[in-house]
Amino acid sequence: MRIDVTTRLVYDLPAETHMLALVQAARTADQSILSERLVVAPESLAEEVDGEGLRWLRGQIGGRLELTYTATIDNGARRLLPPSAVQVSRSDLPLAVLPYLLPSRFCPSDLFLRFAAREFGPHGDGVARVMAVADWIAAHVDYVAGVSTAESDAAHTFTLRAGVCRDFAHLGITLCRALGIPARAVSCYAVDLDPPDFHAVMEVFLGHDWWLVDLTRLAPVEGLVRIGHGRDAADIAFLTTDGPCELVQQQIAATATPG
Amino acid sequence: MRIDVTTRLVYDLPAETHMLALVQAARTADQSILSERLVVAPESLAEEVDGEGLRWLRGQIGGRLELTYTATIDNGARRLLPPSAVQVSRSDLPLAVLPYLLPSRFCPSDLFLRFAAREFGPHGDGVARVMAVADWIAAHVDYVAGVSTAESDAAHTFTLRAGVCRDFAHLGITLCRALGIPARAVSCYAVDLDPPDFHAVMEVFLGHDWWLVDLTRLAPVEGLVRIGHGRDAADIAFLTTDGPCELVQQQIAATATPG
Amino acid sequence: MRIDVTTRLVYDLPAETHMLALVQAARTADQSILSERLVVAPESLAEEVDGEGLRWLRGQIGGRLELTYTATIDNGARRLLPPSAVQVSRSDLPLAVLPYLLPSRFCPSDLFLRFAAREFGPHGDGVARVMAVADWIAAHVDYVAGVSTAESDAAHTFTLRAGVCRDFAHLGITLCRALGIPARAVSCYAVDLDPPDFHAVMEVFLGHDWWLVDLTRLAPVEGLVRIGHGRDAADIAFLTTDGPCELVQQQIAATATPG
Amino acid sequence: MRIDVTTRLVYDLPAETHMLALVQAARTADQSILSERLVVAPESLAEEVDGEGLRWLRGQIGGRLELTYTATIDNGARRLLPPSAVQVSRSDLPLAVLPYLLPSRFCPSDLFLRFAAREFGPHGDGVARVMAVADWIAAHVDYVAGVSTAESDAAHTFTLRAGVCRDFAHLGITLCRALGIPARAVSCYAVDLDPPDFHAVMEVFLGHDWWLVDLTRLAPVEGLVRIGHGRDAADIAFLTTDGPCELVQQQIAATATPG
Repeated sequence: MRIDVTTRLVYDLPAETHMLALVQAARTADQSILSERLVVAPESLAEEVDGEGLRWLRGQIGGRLELTYTATIDNGARRLLPPSAVQVSRSDLPLAVLPYLLPSRFCPSDLFLRFAAREFGPHGDGVARVMAVADWIAAHVDYVAGVSTAESDAAHTFTLRAGVCRDFAHLGITLCRALGIPARAVSCYAVDLDPPDFHAVMEVFLGHDWWLVDLTRLAPVEGLVRIGHGRDAADIAFLTTDGPCELVQQQIAATATPG
Repeated sequence: MRIDVTTRLVYDLPAETHMLALVQAARTADQSILSERLVVAPESLAEEVDGEGLRWLRGQIGGRLELTYTATIDNGARRLLPPSAVQVSRSDLPLAVLPYLLPSRFCPSDLFLRFAAREFGPHGDGVARVMAVADWIAAHVDYVAGVSTAESDAAHTFTLRAGVCRDFAHLGITLCRALGIPARAVSCYAVDLDPPDFHAVMEVFLGHDWWLVDLTRLAPVEGLVRIGHGRDAADIAFLTTDGPCELVQQQIAATATPG
Repeated sequence: MRIDVTTRLVYDLPAETHMLALVQAARTADQSILSERLVVAPESLAEEVDGEGLRWLRGQIGGRLELTYTATIDNGARRLLPPSAVQVSRSDLPLAVLPYLLPSRFCPSDLFLRFAAREFGPHGDGVARVMAVADWIAAHVDYVAGVSTAESDAAHTFTLRAGVCRDFAHLGITLCRALGIPARAVSCYAVDLDPPDFHAVMEVFLGHDWWLVDLTRLAPVEGLVRIGHGRDAADIAFLTTDGPCELVQQQIAATATPG
Repeated sequence: MRIDVTTRLVYDLPAETHMLALVQAARTADQSILSERLVVAPESLAEEVDGEGLRWLRGQIGGRLELTYTATIDNGARRLLPPSAVQVSRSDLPLAVLPYLLPSRFCPSDLFLRFAAREFGPHGDGVARVMAVADWIAAHVDYVAGVSTAESDAAHTFTLRAGVCRDFAHLGITLCRALGIPARAVSCYAVDLDPPDFHAVMEVFLGHDWWLVDLTRLAPVEGLVRIGHGRDAADIAFLTTDGPCELVQQQIAATATPG
């Protein structure tokens, strides 16, 4: 799918601070950036691409920050999780994938071993288990803004049974890891997301590849543009500053464009 | 049922300390103490009975504590929760019962409102809901020693899906309170408990009376001798000291006796 | 001090619900209600006074609730914690005071035994320790709105080092209990509180009496009108409903009045 | 320093399970493995070295596992943190170091921003701050076995004020990250550790290099042999299995050898 993305972020930074931003479409094998334009004022942020194609904007900045990003991305045919994808054992996973089996700040999978085994163990391997996790979350957790905070982890969401996209992703990731399925968080732009915003989804490793799954079911996987991935939301904050930082404006749009 | 209880506790207290013990059968309307004998050495603990019939032993003590309690109790016919007992509204409950609707140290019922309503709300009022809670716990939580600690609250048990009698009681109490049903923890002696030990059960207020429910299903309600009740385990510790205290011996026996 | 209190609360209740309110000045020995007037529309709330003088308004209610409470209270000379008040041992405390030594939902004092002993143990008994706790909180915790939630307990505040009046009270109560000093939460009206609001303070039991301590240092103890007390904020919510409830207006005023 | 390491691990695995072990000295620039021998029975574990020199043993295994590892390592002159090492800003850190600024499962540094700034902010940059953190932990946390569990994170240790080596490392890492100093956990062998065991220490990134710091002060940094590093203990478990696994024997020795 060909997708037009427009992002406009305006912040007031009362004091000079170091800033880290992760808002541009990733340079990964599963999407092509057909065109893009980034305008930052003041111009003190510099881009650096890491080994996995994530594009970090960094620099020291103060006063009024205005960041405008427009891009057209072809995300190919984002493939749906194939029914035949199998779960790979801890002994056979690529070493680089192993960390995504481990608990992280917002995904304390070590606490969920018994629940995951009882609830999803009988569902067989791989895709069937991931689908069972996705169905369970859809059936048991409500999408509600305001009940979770930036501190909420998956255990909190599991108890409260409510949250937003990042909470859904964290709970899904946690349950998959507890089942021995590597899982990570992906920040993205999403066509048709209402209201438009940054989105967070889960990505699972099955059959020697990563697969995107939107546990909120608010945005079709085919309309996602990948920004960043990490162990959980802590790794892929779209903006991080050392000092205070006040949001003035945030506008995001992602629309499918005839190809 | 007529029940013989024998308790022998031996502790070493390296330094003089204030001690609080709650081990004797309560003087409540639902049981008669036919005979009893308490031997404490040294003799520095004194009994005081509170307004609800709980018998507190208190005093300053040091060195080797030996406490032997033998009693024969008639617990009448401990009644099973009657199918007709109805849930009483917050406006109509006796004021003294209201605290048992509120969250406590180990029963954070405020976090479970959504889960409880979703899972047990459709089961109608009163007894049916309590039965649904008891069935849910029996189906979803494993009785396992060593996974919980003295710090574990019901949210921890809800995530871990395993615990011992006090964890079962805390989770049941939490879910009942989240449903608007007053619930409290009861410490007791239990006939046929294997291995013999102090036991913890839940008590719910329905139809203007309190009803005992053993969520572990390890001991029949008919064989319980009530020691204490409170908001949760924090209120009814069988032994509390300010200073260090080393267990030397703990022997408990509760047996039904003819006649 | 003679204090005029005016409270006006307006809520919208989309559905009939049971309501519990605790907003009137308590009928306790330490204050006299010289005059008061409560107007509630609709008139379905009835007052019931518990054994400790707390005045509970209860009833079933729906639609628009308007509650206006005006009162003139003489709180005598709210006494400051006397330097000579001593700590009473667990063995000698009135039985009714013992629960205030125990951990509660928002005051997990069992986790703070080591910290409290290390930090405040050397400060001697009783008043000196309470003063040390109050000074420590003033020096280490910032009064900041928006960092805590209705779920935050004292361990959260201890880590975050910020909170509002209820968080300050919870942390103080927790530390006092960990030191063996009974402590409870008190909801009150406070002269000179800016902005005017319900206030929460700590009350400690020393030398056979209860003493009010405002850990936020925002309101002089002499200007407090007592509404309710309990183990922590869970026990003294000024408004509780089973169903949804939307705040329309809340106005509170407490002013010292000559003579 | 030249160090002889001997490790013998014996486990019973009632069922076939995938196993991951991380027990061999790392192949990193700061140490040379002069000789080593690994004997595993059954022989189903295979070694794979990751991009950072960590050596993972993986395989499917069942029955009785016996693993014996003997090695002589020259760890050069493990350098002490130099007084001149400066803190590197978020904008200038190598991208690969950025994750060590972020919160992880056992190091929720996001909760400690205010505490860290208040307590250690005034200590200037870099080394002085790390030293202040180390001194603070030495002064405020007791080394005590049995108070923490495998679930305990740094917030728990911060409240309890007690723990073992992994808890000390987690708390130090958490505080350093909250100060903007990248920090990670290192598993190692330690000369003179009493009783001998695997050890966990903190490693901080200052002045463009990583520096080891033992917050327990139980083992001199000069006597450490590096095994693994990661965001926290979750990343560097010395043994992970999918199924049950019973410890039969664990023997560890690390001794300085003339050289």
